[in-house]
Amino acid sequence: MTDLLARRVSVLGPNMPTFYNIPLHLIRGEGVHVWDDTGKKYLDCYNNVPHVGHCHPKVVEAITKQAQMLNTHTRYLHEGIVTYAERLTAKFDHDLDQLIMVCSGSEANDIAIRMAHAATGKTGIISTDNTYHGNTHLVTQLSSRKPPIGGYAPFVKRVPSPDTLRPLGGSLEAQGKAFAAEIQKAIDELNANGHGFAGMMLCPVFANEGLHDLDASFLKPAADVVRRANGLLLCDEVQPGFGRCGSHWWGHDRMQIKPDVVTVGKPMANGHPVAAVITRPDIMAGFRNAFGYFNTFGGNPVSCAAASATLDVIENDNLVENANTVGTYFADQMSQLSHPIIASTRGVGLFIAVEVEIDGTPATTEAALIVENMKDKGILMGRTGRNANTLKFRPPLPFEKGHVDQVIETLDSILDTIG
Amino acid sequence: MTDLLARRVSVLGPNMPTFYNIPLHLIRGEGVHVWDDTGKKYLDCYNNVPHVGHCHPKVVEAITKQAQMLNTHTRYLHEGIVTYAERLTAKFDHDLDQLIMVCSGSEANDIAIRMAHAATGKTGIISTDNTYHGNTHLVTQLSSRKPPIGGYAPFVKRVPSPDTLRPLGGSLEAQGKAFAAEIQKAIDELNANGHGFAGMMLCPVFANEGLHDLDASFLKPAADVVRRANGLLLCDEVQPGFGRCGSHWWGHDRMQIKPDVVTVGKPMANGHPVAAVITRPDIMAGFRNAFGYFNTFGGNPVSCAAASATLDVIENDNLVENANTVGTYFADQMSQLSHPIIASTRGVGLFIAVEVEIDGTPATTEAALIVENMKDKGILMGRTGRNANTLKFRPPLPFEKGHVDQVIETLDSILDTIG
Repeated sequence: MTDLLARRVSVLGPNMPTFYNIPLHLIRGEGVHVWDDTGKKYLDCYNNVPHVGHCHPKVVEAITKQAQMLNTHTRYLHEGIVTYAERLTAKFDHDLDQLIMVCSGSEANDIAIRMAHAATGKTGIISTDNTYHGNTHLVTQLSSRKPPIGGYAPFVKRVPSPDTLRPLGGSLEAQGKAFAAEIQKAIDELNANGHGFAGMMLCPVFANEGLHDLDASFLKPAADVVRRANGLLLCDEVQPGFGRCGSHWWGHDRMQIKPDVVTVGKPMANGHPVAAVITRPDIMAGFRNAFGYFNTFGGNPVSCAAASATLDVIENDNLVENANTVGTYFADQMSQLSHPIIASTRGVGLFIAVEVEIDGTPATTEAALIVENMKDKGILMGRTGRNANTLKFRPPLPFEKGHVDQVIETLDSILDTIG
Repeated sequence: MTDLLARRVSVLGPNMPTFYNIPLHLIRGEGVHVWDDTGKKYLDCYNNVPHVGHCHPKVVEAITKQAQMLNTHTRYLHEGIVTYAERLTAKFDHDLDQLIMVCSGSEANDIAIRMAHAATGKTGIISTDNTYHGNTHLVTQLSSRKPPIGGYAPFVKRVPSPDTLRPLGGSLEAQGKAFAAEIQKAIDELNANGHGFAGMMLCPVFANEGLHDLDASFLKPAADVVRRANGLLLCDEVQPGFGRCGSHWWGHDRMQIKPDVVTVGKPMANGHPVAAVITRPDIMAGFRNAFGYFNTFGGNPVSCAAASATLDVIENDNLVENANTVGTYFADQMSQLSHPIIASTRGVGLFIAVEVEIDGTPATTEAALIVENMKDKGILMGRTGRNANTLKFRPPLPFEKGHVDQVIETLDSILDTIG
């Protein structure tokens, strides 16, 4: 492994981090488990890309069959993309009836922003101040982790992210209006600096902001402000989408808002490089007529077969219901853990967050140690949030209550030694 | 098919063109052939993505095996990306020793431009005035087909493309220096407008500009100008790369220049969504330290398996040599066709261009008709160049002399009825 790591640095360059102090060399995956090069088995509570389980045979079969048959592009007619587009848009309960298929969430968000530009004729975009929407030049403008090369452009305004322990406006009740007021302030600034307001991009469950399980009415004032200013509401559903929320297929439905544009990615085809932008026909026409977008790989027959098979498994195995049932159980069990270091436990379906603090201060170092110790004990999970002090559990959807018990027991024993 | 077309418009929106007056509904592909929904067989002289042949069994097998085993991401150690990166960088005969793997040529070019930004601290980029480098917000700035949404940014300068029939500077001999002089002028303008000069992106065989088979020394003055101005030379090898040139693995080797950054895409994994940026360690370090780039799907185990199998087939089936032999035969046969409409025939390995004119005027309408007639007679090919009057033959690499004969005979008979 040391040799592999050295070779990796040699051909991939610096600042290409691996997870964990001693990087994990994974060899095999199946369902909610992965195995490393020593044969050690891990329960995967981190990876949301293998949404229906690592190496799901139905998805592998669909990829194989279509790859044997034909793999071209969307400038020929093909049943695959049309049928998939019909099936996917049918999952949206408002007027999001058309899509563009691409290869990554970054490409999807890059388009969503340009749809807002085309629809409004303005350029100003708002995001939260602790988020990540991808890695193209344009979408890095919305990310707070590291400034884009060349620095932040003036057409992006970042508003304070909502928070559970330190809510905007001083209380969870006041937070929705306070968040909306910050957005209004950013809109006013964009109008004043000449860019105007094109739209706001957000993750409806604020996954990168620390996963905040906010009241279903929380986003209504924000959505109203965006709408009144004639901007587009762009929902990045890369993390909450495809049923992870359990209660709903999409985070925006859980939050009772109706975005103009939705982007999806990671879990869409269980690991095959597929993503999409879903929108209303008027916005699609504005974008497509302004710019002749074509994506060589996006929506090719194999990508559509992979995405379609993933949709089949979600439906046939009732994985959204499972995310709800097991996710609720997971959150309940977690909330019953009693350790002084736990400041907050939150759950949105099969996405569980545990924020750790010591004496009211983010326990970032301890959170890192917990992640390492969990790995040593055979459980993969991660961290999120502004101070990277929120433990993140985001397993493939075929997660079972027995797996939850294993996580709770293991975490409990580790917290005995830490907090 | 009419029904499928109507459903397609309904879910994908307007301005999502298909090829041909009556769109082709392809069902199956194998080697250099595809079949439509009526069972009609076509010789594929268009598609460069299925580089080693449609549905090559070795590539399908590699994808299947790895998809059954594990498909995660590059934040775990995995042999796949390291071995592939070593193999691919070994194909470059100068100091391009590191890579980033992504999902599309657009993502690759978006990074290449930012590498130039990070390396120089400047933002100005130069491209030709008749090109296409992809579809992200940033790279659309370099494309001449349709202005990007919001209009062209002042940090991009477009220089006149070289041309075979109407060379810059009045003659093919003078064209290299004339092209370099245009680049120098653009650099001066970028320095004057405050952006400074970061780099120039070009396709070494000017594929979108009409495929110009220029003298091997043609790009030397241009490269010298770029180098003297401390800019980076960014070669988009999406079309010429992986041996299509026949004489060389890469277009830049054919043209005897040493780019600082190379991007590859389409043919890299025979249709699986994979692309890459290859560069020197110092440029990679500058980029990676300035910006913590991570791509969820890029370089995942399945993508690497697909790319690696494609490399195997290119090597084991001697496809670069085949591109040279069959490509030379193709160009020779084409040059012997005698029709008044043919103004120029050009060949770069298995990439053949036939420019058609009538009385010194681009025969755009006739070129379109030829493409349609060729399709009716079972041959798929396309058009390129500023006036879309250059017939383009760019088949999968396992193309044989018998296929060339079929193309020549068919084209000859069609030209009898047209020009």
